[in-house]
Amino acid sequence: MQSAETETLIRRALAEDIGSGDITTSCTVEPGATGKGRIVAKEPLVVAGIAIARQVFWAVDSNLDIVLLVQDGSRSMDGDTLLKVSGDLATMLMAERTALNFLQRLSGVATLTRAFVDRVAGASVRILDTRKTTPGYRFLEKAAVRAGGGYNHRFGLYDGVLIKDNHIASAGSIRRAVEAVKASKPHDLRIEVEVETMDQLAEAMEAGADVIMLDNMDLATMKEAVHQASGRVVLEASGGVTLDNVGEVAATGVDLISVGALTHSARAVDISMEIEPAF
Amino acid sequence: MQSAETETLIRRALAEDIGSGDITTSCTVEPGATGKGRIVAKEPLVVAGIAIARQVFWAVDSNLDIVLLVQDGSRSMDGDTLLKVSGDLATMLMAERTALNFLQRLSGVATLTRAFVDRVAGASVRILDTRKTTPGYRFLEKAAVRAGGGYNHRFGLYDGVLIKDNHIASAGSIRRAVEAVKASKPHDLRIEVEVETMDQLAEAMEAGADVIMLDNMDLATMKEAVHQASGRVVLEASGGVTLDNVGEVAATGVDLISVGALTHSARAVDISMEIEPAF
Amino acid sequence: MQSAETETLIRRALAEDIGSGDITTSCTVEPGATGKGRIVAKEPLVVAGIAIARQVFWAVDSNLDIVLLVQDGSRSMDGDTLLKVSGDLATMLMAERTALNFLQRLSGVATLTRAFVDRVAGASVRILDTRKTTPGYRFLEKAAVRAGGGYNHRFGLYDGVLIKDNHIASAGSIRRAVEAVKASKPHDLRIEVEVETMDQLAEAMEAGADVIMLDNMDLATMKEAVHQASGRVVLEASGGVTLDNVGEVAATGVDLISVGALTHSARAVDISMEIEPAF
Amino acid sequence: MQSAETETLIRRALAEDIGSGDITTSCTVEPGATGKGRIVAKEPLVVAGIAIARQVFWAVDSNLDIVLLVQDGSRSMDGDTLLKVSGDLATMLMAERTALNFLQRLSGVATLTRAFVDRVAGASVRILDTRKTTPGYRFLEKAAVRAGGGYNHRFGLYDGVLIKDNHIASAGSIRRAVEAVKASKPHDLRIEVEVETMDQLAEAMEAGADVIMLDNMDLATMKEAVHQASGRVVLEASGGVTLDNVGEVAATGVDLISVGALTHSARAVDISMEIEPAF
Amino acid sequence: MQSAETETLIRRALAEDIGSGDITTSCTVEPGATGKGRIVAKEPLVVAGIAIARQVFWAVDSNLDIVLLVQDGSRSMDGDTLLKVSGDLATMLMAERTALNFLQRLSGVATLTRAFVDRVAGASVRILDTRKTTPGYRFLEKAAVRAGGGYNHRFGLYDGVLIKDNHIASAGSIRRAVEAVKASKPHDLRIEVEVETMDQLAEAMEAGADVIMLDNMDLATMKEAVHQASGRVVLEASGGVTLDNVGEVAATGVDLISVGALTHSARAVDISMEIEPAF
Amino acid sequence: MQSAETETLIRRALAEDIGSGDITTSCTVEPGATGKGRIVAKEPLVVAGIAIARQVFWAVDSNLDIVLLVQDGSRSMDGDTLLKVSGDLATMLMAERTALNFLQRLSGVATLTRAFVDRVAGASVRILDTRKTTPGYRFLEKAAVRAGGGYNHRFGLYDGVLIKDNHIASAGSIRRAVEAVKASKPHDLRIEVEVETMDQLAEAMEAGADVIMLDNMDLATMKEAVHQASGRVVLEASGGVTLDNVGEVAATGVDLISVGALTHSARAVDISMEIEPAF
Repeated sequence: MQSAETETLIRRALAEDIGSGDITTSCTVEPGATGKGRIVAKEPLVVAGIAIARQVFWAVDSNLDIVLLVQDGSRSMDGDTLLKVSGDLATMLMAERTALNFLQRLSGVATLTRAFVDRVAGASVRILDTRKTTPGYRFLEKAAVRAGGGYNHRFGLYDGVLIKDNHIASAGSIRRAVEAVKASKPHDLRIEVEVETMDQLAEAMEAGADVIMLDNMDLATMKEAVHQASGRVVLEASGGVTLDNVGEVAATGVDLISVGALTHSARAVDISMEIEPAF
Repeated sequence: MQSAETETLIRRALAEDIGSGDITTSCTVEPGATGKGRIVAKEPLVVAGIAIARQVFWAVDSNLDIVLLVQDGSRSMDGDTLLKVSGDLATMLMAERTALNFLQRLSGVATLTRAFVDRVAGASVRILDTRKTTPGYRFLEKAAVRAGGGYNHRFGLYDGVLIKDNHIASAGSIRRAVEAVKASKPHDLRIEVEVETMDQLAEAMEAGADVIMLDNMDLATMKEAVHQASGRVVLEASGGVTLDNVGEVAATGVDLISVGALTHSARAVDISMEIEPAF
Repeated sequence: MQSAETETLIRRALAEDIGSGDITTSCTVEPGATGKGRIVAKEPLVVAGIAIARQVFWAVDSNLDIVLLVQDGSRSMDGDTLLKVSGDLATMLMAERTALNFLQRLSGVATLTRAFVDRVAGASVRILDTRKTTPGYRFLEKAAVRAGGGYNHRFGLYDGVLIKDNHIASAGSIRRAVEAVKASKPHDLRIEVEVETMDQLAEAMEAGADVIMLDNMDLATMKEAVHQASGRVVLEASGGVTLDNVGEVAATGVDLISVGALTHSARAVDISMEIEPAF
Repeated sequence: MQSAETETLIRRALAEDIGSGDITTSCTVEPGATGKGRIVAKEPLVVAGIAIARQVFWAVDSNLDIVLLVQDGSRSMDGDTLLKVSGDLATMLMAERTALNFLQRLSGVATLTRAFVDRVAGASVRILDTRKTTPGYRFLEKAAVRAGGGYNHRFGLYDGVLIKDNHIASAGSIRRAVEAVKASKPHDLRIEVEVETMDQLAEAMEAGADVIMLDNMDLATMKEAVHQASGRVVLEASGGVTLDNVGEVAATGVDLISVGALTHSARAVDISMEIEPAF
Repeated sequence: MQSAETETLIRRALAEDIGSGDITTSCTVEPGATGKGRIVAKEPLVVAGIAIARQVFWAVDSNLDIVLLVQDGSRSMDGDTLLKVSGDLATMLMAERTALNFLQRLSGVATLTRAFVDRVAGASVRILDTRKTTPGYRFLEKAAVRAGGGYNHRFGLYDGVLIKDNHIASAGSIRRAVEAVKASKPHDLRIEVEVETMDQLAEAMEAGADVIMLDNMDLATMKEAVHQASGRVVLEASGGVTLDNVGEVAATGVDLISVGALTHSARAVDISMEIEPAF
Repeated sequence: MQSAETETLIRRALAEDIGSGDITTSCTVEPGATGKGRIVAKEPLVVAGIAIARQVFWAVDSNLDIVLLVQDGSRSMDGDTLLKVSGDLATMLMAERTALNFLQRLSGVATLTRAFVDRVAGASVRILDTRKTTPGYRFLEKAAVRAGGGYNHRFGLYDGVLIKDNHIASAGSIRRAVEAVKASKPHDLRIEVEVETMDQLAEAMEAGADVIMLDNMDLATMKEAVHQASGRVVLEASGGVTLDNVGEVAATGVDLISVGALTHSARAVDISMEIEPAF
């Protein structure tokens, strides 16, 4: 039930921005004054969070009339209107910044994801996010990744198995770690193992891993890994992937490419609101 | 009382990452196994959020021993250890990603702020943040700005007056907007007015504004504004300020420069955790 | 976003009054029985919290029909009807006491404030509240003060600067305290300093204070302070102000008079509800 | 579990006072500076809420050393120290006002209750509170009443039966209302009926009421009611009871006297805090 | 105000079942697809919680059309439809299990209660629940008991007096415990005492107990207790009551029989949902 | 982060039981009186929730001394002591019922699970729970299943794929449903399909299902399904499994047996607390 979580996040965001009230607006805008506003893209972008922007306005004033002109995943150009709002001017002004803060940030994630996805167009590979999300935004940012054409890795530690170096060290070996997981894990989860060398790859495959993450391998080694795996396991490339090299990584033949930057380093895209008081 | 808010944010972040439990760790790490971990900078950075990282570990396991080797505002180099932790291995692994997610993001804000501040070293000017923060992170991101040597603009709509175009349009004129605010606003707040032209600047000064925000003015006009104001009001430059041009903006003689990118577009800095199980 | 806070307060208030249910009503009132009620002033008063009373009824039963006959700030006489409600009898009875508890208390604050304001009618002075509010009621009680014609001092420690004796002692002197504040405070706040003597007044003015609070000064000293200040700073009288002496305090020429009793010692005004079951 | 509720109330109170931080203190008090404080009665009073005052300090800073010199119910004189605190100066200043706001208000309730109780000393009668409490403070104010020597009426609609005029009108008669309640109410509750006349008193007694509330009766009628009841039911006097007439009401021989003013109109007692920075 | 509590419980239940989303449904059901569903009894049962089932559906999707065909307390046969729902197919599938989990469990309590009540039909005795409820479900389970024809014992420690062995040991004797309670307890509560022997019964009656709980007495002793009490106090049988022996217990003439199993050991009744996608 | 959820559940449970206070105890037990208590099994059982019982005591009084004599999963006999507590008598009495309510219920689940597990001892099969849990108790009841030797099915709709009849009907066929899931689901989840016939089994295997749930099949058909699958997919038996027939179901050779009754119909086991006041 993410909707309740999102509602809580929106209320908290409005609380921190509005607090005991909007002093400037309450002094300068007549009670009852109305107006119209448009949220407009100021650069090419992929939309994410448009329904959340609407939810922000409605959280401040459920009587505002709102029309969405795009949906999550839409590509918009500089100058495109994304959302129209009309009604009470004061509440519109109070919601403006928080609505934009959500929308610019989430659309930033979708836009960056789409750039990665476009670079690997034609290849049979998924662009994946990671757990490197803004704390409290896991669900929203992963939805933004999907809006940009990406796929989601596990949501958290609870819905996927990923055996990393520390787990291997604790269990004693890759084989023992995989066996320990097989004995206890829910039957509906696959087992993924992170490896750094070809030897580890071989050991993981022999132990029965379903998915293998190639951690920070160079392109040549990745290619060899794809050759070794020859389709018997799913391969995920991870580490150091950028817009510049993602095409070459895809060309190695891996099945999945995960990119932390999608969520931890997307810049906000430029979106602004134009408001016109009615007289 | 931000500490309670932060505690809530941390608990929510851990809930979304850990959910019903860390399957991999519970299968591979013996109950009671211990270990040691170090959080290490992987590039030069300014630290922010180090106490929050500690709080994340303690929220998962209050028995972990933690030593902070830096404080917010510290400059660290690639390879510097920021925090040491020892104790239960499983809980350390469960807290790792969330602690890093907070720390990388907030240190990213501090590091970018410091870059702006360093560019205007010597000038008598403050680098300011804006309200363009991650919803729910206003307090934390503004603290990160301070850690980077910046100053805070108002926290929200409730603790400062900023008369913008819509307020002016609603009130009828700059003069009428300023008068309306003077009549009602708390006596302990100054009045700031956003202007786009030299005429508006003159009108705002005459109306009795204390601070004037120069919105998206070019450098020449800004310089003229500084000349006109001649110290009688505080001037803030806003809009389109980058690392490339902030030095020139400062050279115009304005008192304050606000930069939205400090909080809306800082990339996460590279910080990782190295864990060593004990045997 | 005070509306969410108020909603929480109302829900909590209803929870503590209704708990597991209204035993008497559930035993004696037929399910589906309807009725009409009127909330009536039993003495002359100034209304505050009328919308909250309505919100209480709606929190128990969103189907109740409610008409407000006054608004916050209205002066009502003994016998005036403030609110009419009709609909389900049982839910009306369950909401009655909580609605009245809010309304009597907040109207008490507005009524007392209005008495102070009326005593200084004609003088160019503001009657201000303080931070001596019922914990959890800061926003509601400050709104009640405004309903009574008063003005608000800062809402809390976060939206205003007030340098008191302990701050001065810590900083070393009034001058050093003012300088320390100037160096770090947000640029949109003024600086207020609390003083007890004419020497301190002079020092505070010289240090650049914008507002000076005259703490517990006698009328003669206050008058001298007004003379000394001669309009260069804003002066606030504070301490020991009552309905009996507020006129004389205003006559000294101070700009602001703050009165803790507005919120910490207003008695509840007499308001009752008359309900008539329908047959 | 009132402790969790109280903790929530305290956190909310601190949040509304401190918000994003204490600007003045953070500018003027050195980090790490320490001090000592004393909370002192400035008039004769009965203490209530002293442990809550301590809880407020600890909610801001759990490292403050606090000594309570009184307990709830203690009578203190002008000048008596109630609580001593030492430790971090900044956190002490941040907690001061909220701690006092709780303490002055609750001690005000206890002090007023004690005044009523003292007026009826010697009589075998209980002074009772009502449901006319500050919303959200039911538990705290009822504890303050007990600290002042009073007794509690039911906490809410859920833990006592009180048949009032509307219940009687809905049920058809006193007899039918009492019978309806007997048939359904939990077996461990008594039945109380509110009456305005001697006829109603007779009807309520005949119907089997355990307790009868005499609503706004004059002293003569009350005396007659006591005579009629002759100990077969418990009698409660209610309405218009003041410090001036409570002695006469008690002299009629009723068992219980309820006074709404104990909680809805007690003024805050004068208590202040004296702080001394350490050097 | 139980409605807010129930809402919270429902949201929490949906959160734990749906979490970050229903993967299977989102992959297989077209957005916008609609359907119809029926909740059907698969065995004879007494309904409880039907409105909560509806609330669960509406918490997921407030646009679902829902018709209730029964109400709490209705007896349904195998095959009877209890609720019809139509609208969005995906949200219906997401709410299904949680709605059934509430309904099966609460109807289980009502059904078991009804079985006890039916066994004592004709006798003038109440079947009571206890405080042995599922933590967090006190209100809902006690409502289910009433739906099954049972009565509620006190809701908690706060709305009834029940003096047990430990209270007696602490006070020194039954007499002293009863006297201590009389001196302090709210005047609207009766006093119940738990006894194990005829001597204790006599002592409790003499001390002035209103209700006496006969703890784990055999049938013969119970009968003797009824004889001794001869209507002067209310008697409650408690301990070891089953469907097999409840008739004999009632035949002893006690007024109340409390049964922990009503809430702590009722099995879920068989109820299922049949859904038909629309094409 | 289930610990925060559990803490919330405990606080809510205590709130509903204790509310405004334990009247009986506060009247009869001297402040400061101490005592010792033991929680004792009154029948053979498997323990679950013992740490939660301790957490309940500590939530009421963090100063109680508590010793656990068993851990979750321990088998205890009638008369065995599970937990010892000593300290303040009043708080011990206030926590008693809530602690027992958790412990009896969760141990009931563990005990019933263990009975199922013991019946299939020797067979290579897992006993699984379902999503038929008490709303709000998913995590606790699934932990109790593990304490009884069972395994967990998916926690909710978010961490596993289970294609049921409605998903198949919506997608058009088993094949199309499986393909749709493959295209979108996270790569670390397996695909489980529910089938009722041998034809569906064949179709699901051909479509590439990883796990197949045999829904309400008779023993003969189940055996044939095992033969058909011959180890290429994992098989789960579901529907109508009881203690009487679980051995036969296991003997068919299925890999998993899921039993809704483990959580929806376990009776509370008999556990009581013996308290001894100290003198």
